[in-house]
Amino acid sequence: MKATLMYAAGDVRVETVADPTLQQPTDAIVRITRSCICGSDLHPYHSMDASERGNAMGHELIGVIEQVGDAVRTLKPGDFVIVPFAYSDNTCEICRDGFHTACPHGGFFGPSTAGLQAELARIPQADGTAVKVPGVNPDTADESLLASLLTLSDVYLTGYHAAFMAQVAPGQSVTVVGDGAVGLGAVLAAKRMGAEQIILMGRHQARTDLGREFGATHVVAERGEEGVAKVLELTGGLGSHAVLEAVGHMPAYEQSYGVVRPGGVISRVGVPQYELAPVGFGSLFGKNARLAGGPAPVRAYLEDAIQDVLTGEINPGKVFDRTVGFDAIPEGYQAMDAREALKVMIDPSL
Amino acid sequence: MKATLMYAAGDVRVETVADPTLQQPTDAIVRITRSCICGSDLHPYHSMDASERGNAMGHELIGVIEQVGDAVRTLKPGDFVIVPFAYSDNTCEICRDGFHTACPHGGFFGPSTAGLQAELARIPQADGTAVKVPGVNPDTADESLLASLLTLSDVYLTGYHAAFMAQVAPGQSVTVVGDGAVGLGAVLAAKRMGAEQIILMGRHQARTDLGREFGATHVVAERGEEGVAKVLELTGGLGSHAVLEAVGHMPAYEQSYGVVRPGGVISRVGVPQYELAPVGFGSLFGKNARLAGGPAPVRAYLEDAIQDVLTGEINPGKVFDRTVGFDAIPEGYQAMDAREALKVMIDPSL
Repeated sequence: MKATLMYAAGDVRVETVADPTLQQPTDAIVRITRSCICGSDLHPYHSMDASERGNAMGHELIGVIEQVGDAVRTLKPGDFVIVPFAYSDNTCEICRDGFHTACPHGGFFGPSTAGLQAELARIPQADGTAVKVPGVNPDTADESLLASLLTLSDVYLTGYHAAFMAQVAPGQSVTVVGDGAVGLGAVLAAKRMGAEQIILMGRHQARTDLGREFGATHVVAERGEEGVAKVLELTGGLGSHAVLEAVGHMPAYEQSYGVVRPGGVISRVGVPQYELAPVGFGSLFGKNARLAGGPAPVRAYLEDAIQDVLTGEINPGKVFDRTVGFDAIPEGYQAMDAREALKVMIDPSL
Repeated sequence: MKATLMYAAGDVRVETVADPTLQQPTDAIVRITRSCICGSDLHPYHSMDASERGNAMGHELIGVIEQVGDAVRTLKPGDFVIVPFAYSDNTCEICRDGFHTACPHGGFFGPSTAGLQAELARIPQADGTAVKVPGVNPDTADESLLASLLTLSDVYLTGYHAAFMAQVAPGQSVTVVGDGAVGLGAVLAAKRMGAEQIILMGRHQARTDLGREFGATHVVAERGEEGVAKVLELTGGLGSHAVLEAVGHMPAYEQSYGVVRPGGVISRVGVPQYELAPVGFGSLFGKNARLAGGPAPVRAYLEDAIQDVLTGEINPGKVFDRTVGFDAIPEGYQAMDAREALKVMIDPSL
């Protein structure tokens, strides 16, 4: 099969590799209908050390079950499923609490298991991980429906997780830091939770325009202290009840504690590219600001979100603005890195 | 009047100073019935640079109103009141949200206003700050009742704030880091919120014994990695849903993220003696652990807590194990610093 490997920063290749096979009785093999490139794939694209073997890329997919292990009970060949970016058993105490990304029997897709920017993928803990999409035939489904379903494997539900962990409530002011696909998902989620004011901090017009369509009431293009001042001005000097941080770099963190209101919450879903950060009296503690967030337990939200997409209540697939076949995946990385594309879908049929 | 001043680390003096006077029409003057020494007073006691003028000390009191400014509406001379360690207007949007310690018209008692380890004190924003204790005559009240009411000015309700911000819920596992008076208050609050398992991390037998009386189900005397391992063992390897951190030093923070369960919360009320701390993938983010806490908005909790004390439902005053008159306040600091006393009360009549 074709699969995507990264050999070093900037060096992405599509190669023919061995098809995956069942390794555990709880595994399933899925043939990919659509996959995509994630903003977080750009972190190694900037910084990865050279590797002779290459790292398998990709962690988002919708697809059709080809084969299941003997212990798989809820899925069968032919089922059309969504696979979250992390696998989990969905039965342990941590999963029952809704934190599947910390499941002790789970893990993240990537080099150690399989990359999902490939024609086929092995899904560990298949019963706990993959969720069937009822009543949809991927061969005849509308392209926009497939796009929206694909966002449920990561990007929209990661934005949703930011809003969920911030406990966004009706009437609140929410600031979203970052106008990438996750930030736009956070805008959409905050809107659905009833936020009254949604300030999107971002400077890419095409993205912030989609942000407005998703529910942003204000756009702040300024960054740093200037951006903080602008948000404070828009919030009567108080700041936002919830700040949804969808970037992962320190300047975004600093902006976040600058614009959070006393007693408010910063909810991070951008993977932090730092370990130490200010949390003392001058940043979080003095104003009782809270810090939340982490890798989204997409699995916890999947059934409800599938219904929201199927009924047309949300259309998060609008974040995709380019589709490539396998051979053009390297160009897809380049386009996202250069910000010529917001989010790139992979269609194996192209 | 007599007042307590700190001139340098370890140098506390009781001196005669001018009586406070009304400076704003919203002020009141209170004659102190009881005051006390706070664990947080020990931070400058260890590290304060020498000052010629000295810093006025103390931020906890119960007392009787002597005089009120023209704009004070809810209090009159003779009223017996509790004064929180921060003053606030109790009417602005931030106060209405329950975060009085960040009130834009408020502030903390201390050098810039007045120390409350004094015979008299000026209370700014008196209507918003002081709360009358109904039906209690301080001259005839039981000593243990006065002690419990005094803890509502800071120490018990600071422990309560830790549990409140952690949203401790019935059936949960809670770890309290620190066996000082605030930590013991956190144990009591967690017990009242229905925590099933309360693990107190502390190594002073007299204190942890009181912790058990307040509701601790386990005591862990070990610190660092050993302490973390012990808590994980007691929680089936998962850690606690809520960690209430009542110390403020980095080792306590590190223990906290070591013992918090995925999706759990660390709620800090020990004033952080650090600004930077680990919050990245390896500490908080990876397991979706949350960080909460800050200076307790005692005022928000005061009415309910007064009722709990008056009805005898709680008796947090047990944290006081020594009482001194004004002249012995320096010895009181020494005793708390040497851990010979848990918490020292000041009784002007001695």
